[in-house]
Amino acid sequence: MSEWFETLPGLHEQVWQQLTQGAARRDVAARQPTLATISPDGWPEARTVVLRRAVADPAMLEVYTDTQSDKIASIVAHPRAALHFWEPALALQVRLQATVEVISGPTVADRWRELPDGALLSYGTTPPPGTTLPHALDYTKTPDQSRFCVLQLTLGHIDVVHLGTDHRRASFAATDGWTGKWVSP
Amino acid sequence: MSEWFETLPGLHEQVWQQLTQGAARRDVAARQPTLATISPDGWPEARTVVLRRAVADPAMLEVYTDTQSDKIASIVAHPRAALHFWEPALALQVRLQATVEVISGPTVADRWRELPDGALLSYGTTPPPGTTLPHALDYTKTPDQSRFCVLQLTLGHIDVVHLGTDHRRASFAATDGWTGKWVSP
Repeated sequence: MSEWFETLPGLHEQVWQQLTQGAARRDVAARQPTLATISPDGWPEARTVVLRRAVADPAMLEVYTDTQSDKIASIVAHPRAALHFWEPALALQVRLQATVEVISGPTVADRWRELPDGALLSYGTTPPPGTTLPHALDYTKTPDQSRFCVLQLTLGHIDVVHLGTDHRRASFAATDGWTGKWVSP
Repeated sequence: MSEWFETLPGLHEQVWQQLTQGAARRDVAARQPTLATISPDGWPEARTVVLRRAVADPAMLEVYTDTQSDKIASIVAHPRAALHFWEPALALQVRLQATVEVISGPTVADRWRELPDGALLSYGTTPPPGTTLPHALDYTKTPDQSRFCVLQLTLGHIDVVHLGTDHRRASFAATDGWTGKWVSP
């Protein structure tokens, strides 16, 4: 019997187990991955996001954000993202590469309705995120559905590193049906 | 008496305290930030790195890597990086923007000599990182000083978010002497 990290299907399944748990629970690293994008002027950027949905087939993730946030301008300029998390309990680093689509309006009204009241406050800060303020608290938060949007990430690549007694690294691609291959760590 | 997160100098100092501790200790989030870069073909990338050195003035960080790693090709193509960490104990997200210089050879021989034996194994994997392998463990790790290099990050921007009872966000730039300003979160 192999351990999950000793086979390519075992690693691939573990990634999706983490992502699925991340979309549902707060106590796994995949809940708050780091989203990397490229700014309109060509700088890499990274920030914590909350993973809201994970579907293995076809491989797709969802993250919510404010239409006025910096990352929307970045994604409009470069509709590509990397997502990264390190799960210490498994000694597992997961790196994802995805194309991104920004969806707002009636299509995502169901996601808006399902959010708890506290979460709604993240969409609708006045003035918009990144605006210079005279004082730290010179802003208001009022939920505004027209500011709510979904980043839909369609995965192209998954790279995993398991740092056990031995180090194992595998690379999976949508183009090969996620069969995967071992690569040098 | 203000709390550290209530003033711009307090936040700026806290960032450097975290970075300095990160370079020295294992038990802070700044020890293992996420480094985001842009691949030669224009995709954002992110991975965990170990922070090795932090100097506040002039604002500079160091990370070590293998000259054959993917990130070197990325940095040669786009010598820009973002560094990100979230320190749960402080409810503090730190995002850094930096230009990157890759230094190898005699200039960094002192860093090589100071590394513990176990760490040396990270520089010199055969075949090089990312090479396809027939089996997971078909690689060897032999320390090779000629594969050791230092990423020297010269900071241009620091963006911090403190998620306390109130949310505060501040933006600092090298061009204004790191005075900083409040921005909408």
